[in-house]
Amino acid sequence: MADFDMIALIEATKRGSALDDRAVAGFVQSYMAGRVSEAQAAAWLMAVCLKGLDDGAASALTAAMAACGEPLDLSDLAHTADKHSTGGVGDKVTLVACPLAVAAGCTVAKMSGRGLGHTGGTIDKLEAIPGFRTDLSAKEFRQQAARVGLVVASQSHELSPADRRLYALRHETATVDSLPLIAASVMSKKLAAGASSIVLDVKWGRGAFMGSADEAARLASLMCHIGASQGRAMGAAVTPMNQPLGFAVGHVLEVREAVETLRGDGPSDLEALSLELSAKMVHLSGAAESWEAARGAVGEALTSGRALTKLAEMVRSQGGDARVLDDPSRLPRAPLVDVLRSPTDGRISAVDALGIAQAVARLGGSRKGREAIDHRVGVRLLRKCGDPVEPGEPILEIHAPSTELLEHAKTIAGRAMRVGDAAGPPKAEFEIRWVS
Amino acid sequence: MADFDMIALIEATKRGSALDDRAVAGFVQSYMAGRVSEAQAAAWLMAVCLKGLDDGAASALTAAMAACGEPLDLSDLAHTADKHSTGGVGDKVTLVACPLAVAAGCTVAKMSGRGLGHTGGTIDKLEAIPGFRTDLSAKEFRQQAARVGLVVASQSHELSPADRRLYALRHETATVDSLPLIAASVMSKKLAAGASSIVLDVKWGRGAFMGSADEAARLASLMCHIGASQGRAMGAAVTPMNQPLGFAVGHVLEVREAVETLRGDGPSDLEALSLELSAKMVHLSGAAESWEAARGAVGEALTSGRALTKLAEMVRSQGGDARVLDDPSRLPRAPLVDVLRSPTDGRISAVDALGIAQAVARLGGSRKGREAIDHRVGVRLLRKCGDPVEPGEPILEIHAPSTELLEHAKTIAGRAMRVGDAAGPPKAEFEIRWVS
Repeated sequence: MADFDMIALIEATKRGSALDDRAVAGFVQSYMAGRVSEAQAAAWLMAVCLKGLDDGAASALTAAMAACGEPLDLSDLAHTADKHSTGGVGDKVTLVACPLAVAAGCTVAKMSGRGLGHTGGTIDKLEAIPGFRTDLSAKEFRQQAARVGLVVASQSHELSPADRRLYALRHETATVDSLPLIAASVMSKKLAAGASSIVLDVKWGRGAFMGSADEAARLASLMCHIGASQGRAMGAAVTPMNQPLGFAVGHVLEVREAVETLRGDGPSDLEALSLELSAKMVHLSGAAESWEAARGAVGEALTSGRALTKLAEMVRSQGGDARVLDDPSRLPRAPLVDVLRSPTDGRISAVDALGIAQAVARLGGSRKGREAIDHRVGVRLLRKCGDPVEPGEPILEIHAPSTELLEHAKTIAGRAMRVGDAAGPPKAEFEIRWVS
Repeated sequence: MADFDMIALIEATKRGSALDDRAVAGFVQSYMAGRVSEAQAAAWLMAVCLKGLDDGAASALTAAMAACGEPLDLSDLAHTADKHSTGGVGDKVTLVACPLAVAAGCTVAKMSGRGLGHTGGTIDKLEAIPGFRTDLSAKEFRQQAARVGLVVASQSHELSPADRRLYALRHETATVDSLPLIAASVMSKKLAAGASSIVLDVKWGRGAFMGSADEAARLASLMCHIGASQGRAMGAAVTPMNQPLGFAVGHVLEVREAVETLRGDGPSDLEALSLELSAKMVHLSGAAESWEAARGAVGEALTSGRALTKLAEMVRSQGGDARVLDDPSRLPRAPLVDVLRSPTDGRISAVDALGIAQAVARLGGSRKGREAIDHRVGVRLLRKCGDPVEPGEPILEIHAPSTELLEHAKTIAGRAMRVGDAAGPPKAEFEIRWVS
């Protein structure tokens, strides 16, 4: 890359010209080698924000980002499948869908993130289980993948160091909101994580990064293009995130709900989405020959209880107390539990996912502005959109560490729960749109 | 500026929203104070390149840049006028127009730049005069301004440190080609230089920064707006720079031509432009009450020889050998002088200013890629566009330091001189378009 010319790349991007794949890759390599300054990278990111990148250039960027760290090689494992959500409130789907997929024939050797914003990540949720270790060595990770077929570890910093630096630079320079840059950030980590098939859950709505279903579909389609260009089998679901997924928001509460779902007693939206995503993992990874066979296999994994057994196996293997799966009362509990009651009669017209997330964050359930997460705290919805309510009826439950935070959370959650006319729209069906 | 929010400014600029003047000023102050990173500044510059800045924001940016160094206060001097050219090939107008303006009643206490690209700056040209000092102390500068009325010194670094840093950052990040950023760069230095009236010469064409007359007019108009918003009397000429101005290109050759012009023996384009610009300086600065009176005054300054006397006074005051103005043979001379001959008969159809500048640069006459300028070298055009030529007739003269460089320069200059059909367009009149 001695002949890489950053000025020429910035100029071409600024003009909206088609970019040479080698130049885009040259940027990543030269930036990581310290031959492109932070200022040059920032100017280029802004040009990308304002003029876009075509799909080919986005793929070249992502592939170069994925290549410059220490990508995982999972090629010795059969039917490897990864799953990624762009993030939502109450999104504990990984805890359900991955055991389902593994029980139906996939290998899921997954690197996962901690929560960055107002929600916790899968790693935070798993750490709510006493003893559960997420900082596995490379050897432990591989051995468990081969033995159990299911392992979820916290993401190594060196999986995609280019993404780590560019992500920080984008936040510093207000160049976050660009579909190709978002897609490259997500997909560089997914490519580096080594699975041959990748299923994405791209969420839109009040509690998600993407505002509209169409925007989410564009991002989903671009990520599928990028993954396919690098030889991965890709599928992406576009799903709504206006109200939380399921009823539970908060780490311990979400683990409980995930286990209930694997027992067949979960909320319908969470169960439906987990079955769809896991079936896609099974089908794309080649563990089943058709969509119908994959759907059948994950359905059987659920009803037989084999998926829950697989989750227990993983928990034990990672040092966690698997007894909590049989007896959730062994999970840590917040000292105070109180309910919020409906002020009037009518129907729930909105459960603002962002507002609920803010209430949980206020209770200590997010990493925002603090060192440690309180895994015990959270909110459990007792009613969701379209449900009829009576005056004084409990509509949500708050699990709090103190009366002070309980009162704060009540106020915030109260604003998030809106009660409308009794003749309002009935409960909406949860909608999943597939993009590839 | 504790409440300045760089992320908010970048976001607003990226959206193309109207910007708050205080936020734009806050950027300059925070950047200079080290509270805005180079990466953030670069991202903002790129957003400005792609989304523009309205005239108000461009004025706020410029005023803040001008204020953060050590602006000159010339308010104790009468009728102060400054003059700036965006740069052209053979542009020795300052050496003619400033003495004319001063002889007609202005005070010109001017900071001038060295050449940056393929042409030399006024300071380089003045330094071709043996003994001439351009590094005056602030005290010397002021004293000469008061006593002689005319002083031209090299620009202090601290006149506009914000411009110095932003200019370097724009070159590093390919964010040079933005009218508001170009205007802010030029005008921040002009505002800081303290004159109450400012006359601009905005050039367009092959040898200029601006490609078209319309683009140059837009830049001229924006710079006038910025200057007027800060209380300066403004005028801007838009002039062509496809072929060099006058005949001489190269430092000593240009000084000779400037002196010839002040004797009444100069090229018509150079004389016309110098009279126009100096008349505008006289009029805007209030040294004459009308345009006609100003035009008359500079005409008289030329024909009476008083402008040349004023130039000699300045040269003496700054330590230069003023005898060269009477006897140009005292100026340093290149050892070799040779001519280029027309290969055919016809008319000169183009004298590519950029090509001529490159020939002079090859001879050692520019700062590009070397430490010291050779003041002696250059090219003197013997024919210009529209002139008829015979085969073998000399069309330009080359002043070279060695036979090797002479041959290189001949090749380059030969490509720049194009001979067309004898029935081609006749000599075009030099066109000056005023913008305010």
